[in-house]
Amino acid sequence: MNRSMIRYILGAVLCLEGVFLVLPLLVGLFCGERSSIAFLISALICLLLGGLMIWKKPKSNVFYAAEGFVTVSISWIALSFFGALPFWISGEIPNFADALFEAISGFTTTGATILTDVEVMSSCCLIWRSFTHWIGGMGVLVFVLAVFPMGGGNVVFLMKAESTGPSVEKLVPRVKNTALILYGVYTALTVAEILLLAVTGMPLFDAVNMGFATAGTGGFGVLNSSAADYSSLHQVILTVFMILFGVNFNIYYLLLCRRAKDIWHSEELKTYFGIILASGLLIAYNIRHIFPNPLEALKHSFFQVASIMTTTGFATADFDKWPTFSCVILVLLMFCGACAGSTGGGMKVSRILIMIKTAVKELFTIKHPHGVRTLKIDGRVVEHETIRSVNTFVVFYAMLYAVSLLLVSLDNFDFTTSFTAVAATVNNIGPGLSLVGPTGNFSIFSVFSKAVLMFDMLAGRLELIPMMALFSPMIWRKDR
Amino acid sequence: MNRSMIRYILGAVLCLEGVFLVLPLLVGLFCGERSSIAFLISALICLLLGGLMIWKKPKSNVFYAAEGFVTVSISWIALSFFGALPFWISGEIPNFADALFEAISGFTTTGATILTDVEVMSSCCLIWRSFTHWIGGMGVLVFVLAVFPMGGGNVVFLMKAESTGPSVEKLVPRVKNTALILYGVYTALTVAEILLLAVTGMPLFDAVNMGFATAGTGGFGVLNSSAADYSSLHQVILTVFMILFGVNFNIYYLLLCRRAKDIWHSEELKTYFGIILASGLLIAYNIRHIFPNPLEALKHSFFQVASIMTTTGFATADFDKWPTFSCVILVLLMFCGACAGSTGGGMKVSRILIMIKTAVKELFTIKHPHGVRTLKIDGRVVEHETIRSVNTFVVFYAMLYAVSLLLVSLDNFDFTTSFTAVAATVNNIGPGLSLVGPTGNFSIFSVFSKAVLMFDMLAGRLELIPMMALFSPMIWRKDR
Repeated sequence: MNRSMIRYILGAVLCLEGVFLVLPLLVGLFCGERSSIAFLISALICLLLGGLMIWKKPKSNVFYAAEGFVTVSISWIALSFFGALPFWISGEIPNFADALFEAISGFTTTGATILTDVEVMSSCCLIWRSFTHWIGGMGVLVFVLAVFPMGGGNVVFLMKAESTGPSVEKLVPRVKNTALILYGVYTALTVAEILLLAVTGMPLFDAVNMGFATAGTGGFGVLNSSAADYSSLHQVILTVFMILFGVNFNIYYLLLCRRAKDIWHSEELKTYFGIILASGLLIAYNIRHIFPNPLEALKHSFFQVASIMTTTGFATADFDKWPTFSCVILVLLMFCGACAGSTGGGMKVSRILIMIKTAVKELFTIKHPHGVRTLKIDGRVVEHETIRSVNTFVVFYAMLYAVSLLLVSLDNFDFTTSFTAVAATVNNIGPGLSLVGPTGNFSIFSVFSKAVLMFDMLAGRLELIPMMALFSPMIWRKDR
Repeated sequence: MNRSMIRYILGAVLCLEGVFLVLPLLVGLFCGERSSIAFLISALICLLLGGLMIWKKPKSNVFYAAEGFVTVSISWIALSFFGALPFWISGEIPNFADALFEAISGFTTTGATILTDVEVMSSCCLIWRSFTHWIGGMGVLVFVLAVFPMGGGNVVFLMKAESTGPSVEKLVPRVKNTALILYGVYTALTVAEILLLAVTGMPLFDAVNMGFATAGTGGFGVLNSSAADYSSLHQVILTVFMILFGVNFNIYYLLLCRRAKDIWHSEELKTYFGIILASGLLIAYNIRHIFPNPLEALKHSFFQVASIMTTTGFATADFDKWPTFSCVILVLLMFCGACAGSTGGGMKVSRILIMIKTAVKELFTIKHPHGVRTLKIDGRVVEHETIRSVNTFVVFYAMLYAVSLLLVSLDNFDFTTSFTAVAATVNNIGPGLSLVGPTGNFSIFSVFSKAVLMFDMLAGRLELIPMMALFSPMIWRKDR
């Protein structure tokens, strides 16, 4: 375990967080809010601590998968811890456990809140909440790779551990440049959305917040009604951008390179749009009697489908009151999640694809016991290692789910609440059903359950293995 | 596809069913019930049809996995169809879809009922219900292999397709003898239970029914209160035998051979007992305030744990009213299920073991990318093929679960009802929570949902692949 390298990267993450904290600080100063001081203090703590940690360059930059996973987990825990400071110092969330919950929910782009009234929060706290979504969406380590000089160590493991989906492709040979491209696309899309929302009449502050929250597929808004009180036009814009941020970012890179043929061949993309279309239409039909006209039903249906499938978690309607069929579709979408390489959570469409293809292949083997059939996606053979990693993911997922559900159920809320609270956090969505539905929130849970759900959010965002590795003695054991 | 062999085996199954139907016929005649005639008619139909089908020996006995899976699926569908006839002909279940549901629920040892009052049923119908559990528990194809001359064809595929768990071992070199040993142990244990129940004061008719239902881990009783009205002693006896029938039958064979050391080394057995003990104690502690004394709480807790984990489905208390923590433990046990090679359903302890060991192995690989670590159970290396089959099982399981939940939710019952109705059928348990809890029943569902749940029961009992194979065009396509 290369501890000096871990220390160095952690320092870089804290320095970055210190810089990021300047945005809410400026907003706070601009609005003349007392809470600004909390952001100033937090930023200084981050910069000071981070600066100390990057003072000494690491002795060696030998870096393997185990280091990658551990570094990413620790970084995200530190990020959340220091990100919670301003909420707590400002006194706007007086309980530190709650502040930490809110920060983890922000960075992991979950969007589950313990606040019962967000409209009383200061502007600087609100913008920090949605900005954490934006930071966490693409990943902070990816950012570190883009801006910090990392030497020749095998830092692609960092990117692998933080990125979403079963396999990571470097778009260009150098990790640094890949990271820069990803952040470029991410920023451009975010700016485009904010501008579009603003010019169509949304207040700029709301537009920026909603833009950040959509980009990271987070879900923290600035109104208690989430997205229900915005105009239909704004809701449609939000729907479109939620869907766009659920797409694999490699697709946008291909688009920039004008490789339309490769995009057309992307099975994951086609499946993703297929699922959205099918779910949207089915739900719209199922809820048609609730709304005055079919267009209204379609609007609400597609908004909720986009919101849940991309794991954003905004709501324009209380879908907890919808027929069970619609609720079940939404719950299934929670597990499916968005595309690999997007800012969305869940299991990812590509994993589902690989799973289904493995199953079909197995049926083929029954018929032709000695036949050979390779598993292909987009015309390319999927490596055995990737298939294995998908299987491992599913096992860890099921284990984490079972244990979390058990622990959360100690609070004795109904089965649907407990079940969907875990689903909404481990898949980084935000709202679930019943007491944690769109009109509910997570303040009802005990500190113990909140701790479990915080772990789930982090584990979900980092796709399980990093957090499992962090708490596995095997990883920390000295090499023989 | 060797169709003549499939036809021959199907005929044998029907002949056997004809013979099995004689038991309820005799009971009916003894009690002088009008419904006896329905059993006579059904038996004659089975014997006639079956006789015609085995009249001509199959041309070839070449027999592969694909044939094995398809034969088993078709046999079970036929078994259920003809097993439903007496319920329907006698008019005791006037709706044929309901009669079929009851028969499938019986043979698959689920124990989910559409009857709102079982106490008005005739004795011959009641004994047929529980006898179907006994027939389905060990498997009817296993019985066919034990008594019919099958020639040299590779009939072990039949046993593989019908037996429970990820891998099947022949206890002795010949399939026929293995089947005979299994049925011998099964019969001996059943007789032991019936005798024990009867000598401790349970009416003989009840003892026989409860014995059959426990042996098959089914759950159809003869009282509306399931097992709640029997004495504490009887409930304890039932608990012990439910647990015994959830054990891998190979263990009993080892016991007969006095190979105690091998039994001691069985990781699955130790895990199985460990889970029962832990769940039982946790629930007992969780429900201690509901019952007058701790012993009472322990009795109810262990009864329900044994009943759900072995997928029997008897109840001595309305666990739907228990705290959510206890309910969640029971729901998790539904998915876990009993040991491989037992009469129980669910995913099986050995699959869970293999899954967890795969995950641990993967963590090891992160630390030692070039290290080699084999997956062992009971000190023996688990074949790659078995691991793959477990992964396939999980994928099919998740797919079937998602689709079933979606379809059943069209009935618009609450989420918990829909979710646990699927869990209770696909895992062959019987009762779920909420409206399908211990005091509810499955009569509330539409015919469409019942059809979905019937498929789930069959798919669950045959461990998915056979039913998937039956409906896969790939399997039926002519060889090139």
